Amino acid sequence: MVRVRILGVGMGPQHVTPEVAAALRTADYVLAADKGGDDELLALRREILVRHAESVPMVAVRDPARDRSSGLSTVGYVGAVADWHDARAAEYASVLRERGGTAAFLVWGDPSLYDSTIRIVEKIRELGVPVEFDVLPGISAPQVLAARHRIVLHEVGRPVHVTTGRRLQEAVAAGQDNVVSMLNPPPERLDLTGLDDWTVWWGANLGAAGERLVAGTLGEVWPAVVEARAAAKAEAGWVMDLFLVRRPS
Amino acid sequence: MVRVRILGVGMGPQHVTPEVAAALRTADYVLAADKGGDDELLALRREILVRHAESVPMVAVRDPARDRSSGLSTVGYVGAVADWHDARAAEYASVLRERGGTAAFLVWGDPSLYDSTIRIVEKIRELGVPVEFDVLPGISAPQVLAARHRIVLHEVGRPVHVTTGRRLQEAVAAGQDNVVSMLNPPPERLDLTGLDDWTVWWGANLGAAGERLVAGTLGEVWPAVVEARAAAKAEAGWVMDLFLVRRPS
Repeated sequence: MVRVRILGVGMGPQHVTPEVAAALRTADYVLAADKGGDDELLALRREILVRHAESVPMVAVRDPARDRSSGLSTVGYVGAVADWHDARAAEYASVLRERGGTAAFLVWGDPSLYDSTIRIVEKIRELGVPVEFDVLPGISAPQVLAARHRIVLHEVGRPVHVTTGRRLQEAVAAGQDNVVSMLNPPPERLDLTGLDDWTVWWGANLGAAGERLVAGTLGEVWPAVVEARAAAKAEAGWVMDLFLVRRPS
Repeated sequence: MVRVRILGVGMGPQHVTPEVAAALRTADYVLAADKGGDDELLALRREILVRHAESVPMVAVRDPARDRSSGLSTVGYVGAVADWHDARAAEYASVLRERGGTAAFLVWGDPSLYDSTIRIVEKIRELGVPVEFDVLPGISAPQVLAARHRIVLHEVGRPVHVTTGRRLQEAVAAGQDNVVSMLNPPPERLDLTGLDDWTVWWGANLGAAGERLVAGTLGEVWPAVVEARAAAKAEAGWVMDLFLVRRPS
């Protein structure tokens, strides 16, 4: 039996909870995807190990290339993601079979929100590797976004709808008036039709180099968002952004 | 100028992040509501101080009684919450005026989700106390729920809708098929009409004494939920529960 611990690490070492740090120190090794080149997430994982569990080695596994040709089609997207999960699972399965013991995955943000680690570990099991696993939560990007803007994600007693940039217009059409949009495509491929008078709270590279924040009426501040996003990317070499939009009351 | 730090502490000492612990150690004192009697949350705040910032004193402020007579009416609910925020703000304002310095609030879970601390601090400002404040995120209950059940809160690339028990049916009527329900009333006042064939992942007192988990088809497992909730309350003296429900695909 191989033990796998799926550990949420938030946006970096500053967010690693005591329970995650303790779990990390029970691991024989950390499994991580190596995307090749300047891999910022790999570097941040190393930083977490240095700070919280220096003696635990990292095993970097070459990440299979992901087919991003599907563009905005949701059916194509789900299919491409599934294939990519399969390929990743097969790579990890061979390492786990060979090494055994207790392996940890360090999950950026929280394993429960737009993260594939749990699904990949379930696939590893389906491949016949005898895995038992547990999951510990980490700080997620919408929480950091709210903290930086010093806001609650919803009005008193009201809902918050969390979705992807691809599905933002679907949420608006269904009457949602308070929406967090994650996994956003670049601004030129994001459909913001009808949201000009909504309030937006936007952030990029939260908790990392190049962090940027913009808030205001969407139609007025969006040019500033586009500019800030480009500046974040120029500074860090990568950019991940998200935002909350709220219909005017 | 008084400095206020609003710090998310998750479900207890095991979730206090390094950045929150560091912020806590910059505080001159922690402000906390004292609800009188066996106040479990006050006791847990003391535990957090013992573990992470032993020299910082706690100033417990008598919590104004909250009018819970409004029952299920949402308009009445919002009004009662607003009055209670005003009363709390006035109590805290007088302490902050008197003591000055840097005060910390330890927020259960995360300040961005169904928590009133940010709004109360804004009210303290409106009362004329010169406050500057910052916010740091903490692990929220839906994340712990997902981690315990080892699930992602949504299907691949799909949304998750977070709302209150009062508004659950409103979300279902609007076509939501994947809903986290928080701030739930006791089961006998919770309307689960039409959800019998949905899957539920339920939890109570997560990360604390009396933690309970139930998952399955709602119509089949709900009696087990009611029983587990009563057992959690009997064990801990209090109960807070939440759940994710997903429409069958």
